[in-house]
Amino acid sequence: MQISLSLNAVLDRIDYSTFEGELGVRNVTGVASLEDAQRGDASFVASAKYLEDLKKSEASLVVLSKDLEAEPRPGQLFLRVDNPSIEIAKLCELISQRMWVKPEAGIHQLSSIDPTAEVDPSACIEAFVTIGAGARVGAGCVISSGCFIGPACELGDDCYLGANVTLERDTVIGKRVRIHSGVVLGSDGFGYEFEGGRHRKVPQVGSVFVGDDVEIGANTTVDRGRFGPTRIGEGSKIDNLVQIGHNVTVGKHNILCAQVGIAGSTKLGDYVVMGGRAGASGHIEIGSGAQLAGQCVAFSDLEGGAKYGGAPAIPLVAYQRITVITRRLPELFKRLTQLEKQLLRD
Amino acid sequence: MQISLSLNAVLDRIDYSTFEGELGVRNVTGVASLEDAQRGDASFVASAKYLEDLKKSEASLVVLSKDLEAEPRPGQLFLRVDNPSIEIAKLCELISQRMWVKPEAGIHQLSSIDPTAEVDPSACIEAFVTIGAGARVGAGCVISSGCFIGPACELGDDCYLGANVTLERDTVIGKRVRIHSGVVLGSDGFGYEFEGGRHRKVPQVGSVFVGDDVEIGANTTVDRGRFGPTRIGEGSKIDNLVQIGHNVTVGKHNILCAQVGIAGSTKLGDYVVMGGRAGASGHIEIGSGAQLAGQCVAFSDLEGGAKYGGAPAIPLVAYQRITVITRRLPELFKRLTQLEKQLLRD
Amino acid sequence: MQISLSLNAVLDRIDYSTFEGELGVRNVTGVASLEDAQRGDASFVASAKYLEDLKKSEASLVVLSKDLEAEPRPGQLFLRVDNPSIEIAKLCELISQRMWVKPEAGIHQLSSIDPTAEVDPSACIEAFVTIGAGARVGAGCVISSGCFIGPACELGDDCYLGANVTLERDTVIGKRVRIHSGVVLGSDGFGYEFEGGRHRKVPQVGSVFVGDDVEIGANTTVDRGRFGPTRIGEGSKIDNLVQIGHNVTVGKHNILCAQVGIAGSTKLGDYVVMGGRAGASGHIEIGSGAQLAGQCVAFSDLEGGAKYGGAPAIPLVAYQRITVITRRLPELFKRLTQLEKQLLRD
Repeated sequence: MQISLSLNAVLDRIDYSTFEGELGVRNVTGVASLEDAQRGDASFVASAKYLEDLKKSEASLVVLSKDLEAEPRPGQLFLRVDNPSIEIAKLCELISQRMWVKPEAGIHQLSSIDPTAEVDPSACIEAFVTIGAGARVGAGCVISSGCFIGPACELGDDCYLGANVTLERDTVIGKRVRIHSGVVLGSDGFGYEFEGGRHRKVPQVGSVFVGDDVEIGANTTVDRGRFGPTRIGEGSKIDNLVQIGHNVTVGKHNILCAQVGIAGSTKLGDYVVMGGRAGASGHIEIGSGAQLAGQCVAFSDLEGGAKYGGAPAIPLVAYQRITVITRRLPELFKRLTQLEKQLLRD
Repeated sequence: MQISLSLNAVLDRIDYSTFEGELGVRNVTGVASLEDAQRGDASFVASAKYLEDLKKSEASLVVLSKDLEAEPRPGQLFLRVDNPSIEIAKLCELISQRMWVKPEAGIHQLSSIDPTAEVDPSACIEAFVTIGAGARVGAGCVISSGCFIGPACELGDDCYLGANVTLERDTVIGKRVRIHSGVVLGSDGFGYEFEGGRHRKVPQVGSVFVGDDVEIGANTTVDRGRFGPTRIGEGSKIDNLVQIGHNVTVGKHNILCAQVGIAGSTKLGDYVVMGGRAGASGHIEIGSGAQLAGQCVAFSDLEGGAKYGGAPAIPLVAYQRITVITRRLPELFKRLTQLEKQLLRD
Repeated sequence: MQISLSLNAVLDRIDYSTFEGELGVRNVTGVASLEDAQRGDASFVASAKYLEDLKKSEASLVVLSKDLEAEPRPGQLFLRVDNPSIEIAKLCELISQRMWVKPEAGIHQLSSIDPTAEVDPSACIEAFVTIGAGARVGAGCVISSGCFIGPACELGDDCYLGANVTLERDTVIGKRVRIHSGVVLGSDGFGYEFEGGRHRKVPQVGSVFVGDDVEIGANTTVDRGRFGPTRIGEGSKIDNLVQIGHNVTVGKHNILCAQVGIAGSTKLGDYVVMGGRAGASGHIEIGSGAQLAGQCVAFSDLEGGAKYGGAPAIPLVAYQRITVITRRLPELFKRLTQLEKQLLRD
């Protein structure tokens, strides 16, 4: 993360109204929390509760809300802005562009590309990548080392695959899809029929279809459909170690946090949010805009536009109330026993 | 999934009693749900509740139960059968055989095979595969790109390894075992002794033993035993992102759904079923035929042949009853408080 | 695990007080449980409840507590010790050293090392490894096949990476760190801002920092920080399939069991223990020495030095009490209804 941004580059990017103090270093060398910031770093303050941290911070450049009462120390530059979080994100984007230099186009000589595969000349195929028969890789794609792209897969333009990603055959992904390291898309769905004391495999001849602008976190798995596709809708963001079963439909612009699990054939609408380790059993529907708290698991259909908690999922407010009351169960038992004694006495 | 089956090939495979209508296309080009089916596709109807979907379906060939009241549209062929689900699975198997053409035998030149390893000439070793000293790979095995097969591993005949699978040294797997992409078998068990303020590693010198006809889902992990083997019994099927700790014994013909976790030294009998994200703590026994619902976690021994729910696991019926009652806790508190008031008044 | 230890090698290692009987084989050929042991194997007995197993065991060498009443059979050697578990661990260590012969130093010719990377000549780089620009690999490191070490990564001396491990750019790991197969360190944190109906990515320009003597289990994922590092403290041990979110700080000498999940920006103190599938939501602090039982999830700050259970986490004793009482809820409802009837009658 050793970068170097001139003050001009920073000022060009950030939407500030006024400034105070002056930058005591030649260049901005990073972004950090107030606590972690060293000389040269930029940081930000969004709320008055961090003003104490600000006093102790080594940050050379601080992006802060207009209304906060604070003064720069010598060699410290303050930029006053409307929304510090958004402005610092712009700075991170600038840093990000310097850090992640796009690798040169071309195919590494230590790779294994089927002669019938079509790889756009502007794509970058790193070492130890396998691309199967009839697969297509779009313009500007970056395929990191160790990836496996099976036969008949299709990748739209400007996709990024981290290292050791596996796309099983027939997987189709849209444009600007980011798939992090270790992800497996298109492994067989989990389907068996019990016959004569053994589990006989039900063939899984479907595929996986991923829309534009989807991001999928490290080591997540998405199974291929039994016959139709398993679908991840446009703009959805999926965190690490998530499991998506066969024939599932994830709608558009969903947020699925880490360790979520969705069992087979379940349908999620658009703008669904599932917190960490939330889940859904198979063959159910979760309506658009539903929000499941962390650890919440839907065992039956959930209406959209509402918040849920618990397993099985119930409305969040009811769940929170029950959680509080559950802790009072020992008291409840005592009170009940007390009443019984009293009645017996009477 | 672009396939093409002649009507004769389909009729040879499916066990139908009568047919109605006629096929309006030259060949069957896929299998799909009623909803997804396009012209050329085969589909199936197993229950009257899908008859409305059937009316709107584009499917050219429909496999349906004898007793369902429906008539084919022009260009649509109905095959009447006893069990539509089983018959369509046969068709999928046929498609599957066309799709997954077995790759040619031989060892890719961009692979790293120890000279002391024994690879059967009928096996297919894809690119970027490493096979360690003394390892043996049986007849007809397919080892996909990026796999690592450590020293002294043994693979029986006709095994399939997806891409980027890791078998640590000494792992022994039987015949016809299917291991999906990203799986790790034989990583160190999690064992430490606390000594002088530090966790000292307990060496893990056991191995992993996998029986015939086992299937293991993507990114699942199975640790090697402390000294003896961790065992997965014949015919057991394990889904994605499952964790099996060291010294565990999974019996024969188990079903372990996605995100299940089994802690060290626990023993599962035969025909155990564990739903999604079910679990078992360490050093316990779960009897043959026990069925744990999704999210159910065993904290102590469970008798076989029964169904369980909850964490800690209790009999499923009791768990369901408690789940329902728990939701009435606010009401319970109100009623109790009411009673107390009444008694005070008296 | 085919090894062969002379009796002298064994006796040199084990701290025994007396012995009984004599070894009926030339060499000790392995370590096994009493049940699994075959002729030639060593085993151990730590408690009287295993004396029946001992009678049936084929073990040739048995390490057992001084006070246990048992006699060796012909060809069986007993070594009497203070702590059989610790003594057998020493024997396992000896076996481990024979099994895991350190591979020869050097860089495999089928690897892809950036010319600006610095790899110590005593390190072993196996086949199909990628090392990026400016990365440094310390003395004595073993990097197994298929690993990806991104630009600007740093590995201290004597680290071990299993197969197909991914270290994204800027990841810094200390000395003697063991990272098992399939692990991903430094993938993007999960951060988005919702704008105009879409989730806009918040750039993740931080890194991952791993202290000395850390061990990380198979297929575990640790995200890079938003700007600062995600930290894993010295001596901490992390099991398989664990998720650590961005900006998390894991303190020193923690134990995180399999399937644990820690959401972003949470801080764990030192000597924290989290059982299987325990968890913590984001932006909270868990004090040093806190112990979370399996499945326990912290939704708010937890004080150190105490034991917790449940989700949301509460003190373990209270949780256990509530768990027991919850099972009596049907009875509670009956008793309450009974009281109500009685009062109505009065």
